[in-house]
Amino acid sequence: MVQYPQIDRTFAALGDPTRRSILERLGRGSATITELAEPFGISLTGCKKHVRVLEDAELVSTEKVGRARRCSVGPRRLEDVHEWTEMYRRMLDERPDRFGELLERTKGVPQ
Amino acid sequence: MVQYPQIDRTFAALGDPTRRSILERLGRGSATITELAEPFGISLTGCKKHVRVLEDAELVSTEKVGRARRCSVGPRRLEDVHEWTEMYRRMLDERPDRFGELLERTKGVPQ
Repeated sequence: MVQYPQIDRTFAALGDPTRRSILERLGRGSATITELAEPFGISLTGCKKHVRVLEDAELVSTEKVGRARRCSVGPRRLEDVHEWTEMYRRMLDERPDRFGELLERTKGVPQ
Repeated sequence: MVQYPQIDRTFAALGDPTRRSILERLGRGSATITELAEPFGISLTGCKKHVRVLEDAELVSTEKVGRARRCSVGPRRLEDVHEWTEMYRRMLDERPDRFGELLERTKGVPQ
């Protein structure tokens, strides 16, 4: 129905608690890979992999600053996820057969 | 920050276009596996796998009716995805350093 070229990657990137926490951390301000890895108790390599997944989904941007890599929130702000989710929730709210379907389901239930 | 036990599965389940289309289809009314598979041109086995992933995330419910398996939208209506997404987007909108960070970024750019 609603099509976004990026949305598969966005949803997949968000399906991991560490990646969501990285986004929440970067929402408060930019950080280096080292600063990101420390509070989560993950290796730098592990952290880099998570950042790469977020970067591929354009949820995070990175730039080399001296010897460090600085991460900040990317150009995408979950517009696609927001729109798809709202569309789906609205669809469920509005469907005319909702009550009928509930009735249908209870028909087979012994009283 | 916001914690939901189910949210990893929900996001992961939504990271596939066929699974999102199945949800959109079921949003319009229940359907058997065969009815679901046909318009997507996927095998019954492939369709069952997608439905299983959606069922594990409680986004779809199924019940055996005679020899068919009837699928309908599950008890979860993306409350977790909706709340996390809204929290993150609000966080980005409200952060006080947003303008400062933009200024900071342009400092290194040659004029």
